[in-house]
Amino acid sequence: MGNWERNVRRVVPYVPGEQPVRTDIIKLNTNENPYPPSPKVREAMERMDFDRLRRYPAVDTEPLRSAIADRYGLNPGQVFVGVGSDDVLAMCFMTFFQSDRPILFPDITYSFYDVWAELFRIPYRQIPLDDNYEIRTEDYRTENGGIVFPNPNAPTGRLLPVRTAEEIIRNSPDSVVIVDEAYIDFGGESVLPLLEKYDNLLIVQTFSKSRSLAGMRIGYAFGSEKMIRYLEDVKYSFNSYTMNMAALQLGTAAVSDEAYFRQTVERIIATRERTAVRLRNLGYIVPESAANFLFVSHPELDIGKLFEDLKEAGIYVRYWKKPRLDNHLRITVGTDGEMDRLAEFLQNYRQN
Amino acid sequence: MGNWERNVRRVVPYVPGEQPVRTDIIKLNTNENPYPPSPKVREAMERMDFDRLRRYPAVDTEPLRSAIADRYGLNPGQVFVGVGSDDVLAMCFMTFFQSDRPILFPDITYSFYDVWAELFRIPYRQIPLDDNYEIRTEDYRTENGGIVFPNPNAPTGRLLPVRTAEEIIRNSPDSVVIVDEAYIDFGGESVLPLLEKYDNLLIVQTFSKSRSLAGMRIGYAFGSEKMIRYLEDVKYSFNSYTMNMAALQLGTAAVSDEAYFRQTVERIIATRERTAVRLRNLGYIVPESAANFLFVSHPELDIGKLFEDLKEAGIYVRYWKKPRLDNHLRITVGTDGEMDRLAEFLQNYRQN
Repeated sequence: MGNWERNVRRVVPYVPGEQPVRTDIIKLNTNENPYPPSPKVREAMERMDFDRLRRYPAVDTEPLRSAIADRYGLNPGQVFVGVGSDDVLAMCFMTFFQSDRPILFPDITYSFYDVWAELFRIPYRQIPLDDNYEIRTEDYRTENGGIVFPNPNAPTGRLLPVRTAEEIIRNSPDSVVIVDEAYIDFGGESVLPLLEKYDNLLIVQTFSKSRSLAGMRIGYAFGSEKMIRYLEDVKYSFNSYTMNMAALQLGTAAVSDEAYFRQTVERIIATRERTAVRLRNLGYIVPESAANFLFVSHPELDIGKLFEDLKEAGIYVRYWKKPRLDNHLRITVGTDGEMDRLAEFLQNYRQN
Repeated sequence: MGNWERNVRRVVPYVPGEQPVRTDIIKLNTNENPYPPSPKVREAMERMDFDRLRRYPAVDTEPLRSAIADRYGLNPGQVFVGVGSDDVLAMCFMTFFQSDRPILFPDITYSFYDVWAELFRIPYRQIPLDDNYEIRTEDYRTENGGIVFPNPNAPTGRLLPVRTAEEIIRNSPDSVVIVDEAYIDFGGESVLPLLEKYDNLLIVQTFSKSRSLAGMRIGYAFGSEKMIRYLEDVKYSFNSYTMNMAALQLGTAAVSDEAYFRQTVERIIATRERTAVRLRNLGYIVPESAANFLFVSHPELDIGKLFEDLKEAGIYVRYWKKPRLDNHLRITVGTDGEMDRLAEFLQNYRQN
């Protein structure tokens, strides 16, 4: 046995939400969309050219890239496409955060940020949210090697107005500021219009939530053409062909069905608001959310126990045993029927 | 305009073979399979559960991982799956080559190795092939932080016998040795049986060549369970869900059709041998190849000009303007009909 292990990069990996094999459960733990993708995606699946699978897929991620650009009024050169927004964010960390100064992100946020920073040996500083779980922009007005934050934030669901997000971008012109808009379609306003004004801004979005395509792994970024070229150089140095033929074709179909997209998003928003009211009436603390999940606490209940009891009853939600988070659940917004089952369980729920 | 560019990781990316939009060409430039995937892949495509696309794919890359393990007589814990062998190799470089000593690979080889080394800032040394374009195992008997070589080598097609490859693995017990077997199915013998004997051995293979699935992006690695766990930790720190649902399901179907796999590979080998004889009869130098391509030179012709003239005639092959390579073409083995067209062109070809 040799000593090859001394050359191994040791990391503490990200732990994704449970993906149970049981199918009889109510799955509200990974922020998936409760509705299937657009019928146009099914058509694209049926049209897929089987014989072409022997060929490499389009290296420039077309036609998906142009379809996304069209939808958002950009040039294809301002769009980068990756294997889910995690792939896009990983590439962004590798590309733009080569600094000795720490990058900044909230202490309570998407729990992959510190994992990437550790993986790529990027120094980082976690900035505490205030007591109301809000981002304070003035805290980010300090020397840094880059900034990343989700808007709306996860798992809190809190949204920064564009004007507030802009302060953060404006105050760090010497760093790339990544606004992770994975959940922006559920009622938030994108910082996209700021792209013309700030060349240090990069925006990341995904097909996994609002477009019901978590299973296809499609994420994307918007930035200046120069910034996207830097990102592509790193991507082409890592894996030239990341997007397979199915992802390119099904993604293109999904982004072209605007009517279905709006309808699905509106249904989820309506269910979210209805559920929030109902849970508040049951004594839960449910702040406004601009995402497809609710960040729920309770003045008396042991939330860790509630999490286990819900699971026992076949209702999976997300819970973190971490300071400031261990008294909250993150509950994905499912169908009305699923949320009714949740509310019924909570209505009858007692802890001794 | 800020100074954010000073924090950008600058790289010289890998340049993949041209993917022309024209469809009337003979495409022998990226080592794709001339035959479509197994009919079982088409069936899997037709069976794909559209509604499930809203859900994240299996985080453990099942059932593909177990299907590969079964096919090769391993445990699923000895198998790692990624987005093409490029993704697998990139993860391996990041995971196992964390050393101040240089990693070693041939000077003429897969041109992505130095790109990954540059990307991850890994010191490296390129060991010249001998005058006959062969790997000399004794050259690798030197202090190193890791070793990687393709077997058969690309673009030369030269195969090392298992016993010779074993010398390299045995002589560097303190480093991970990666044997990149992207082309092993076209007549080579895998080092797989050595896995029991050497805990520093990692083997990488792909669905892109022998299984006609370049368009699906599926690669995999074999190693000890401990080694695969290290690799997975890094992968889970990068992107938890790399394999989309289509890749998992279509890949599983492909690996289960052993009869079709053997038949396709045998056809390609027969065409390769036939083409080699024919080109030699036309005065070309065509060494034995154990891959799905030929490494072709000529005692008199200007090979760079031949490359351009072939392209002009609609026949795309691969050419590198690099020392020791600029007098060679790498020609992918296509169908018999395609190779006949190539041979006819060469038969009538003259340079003034």
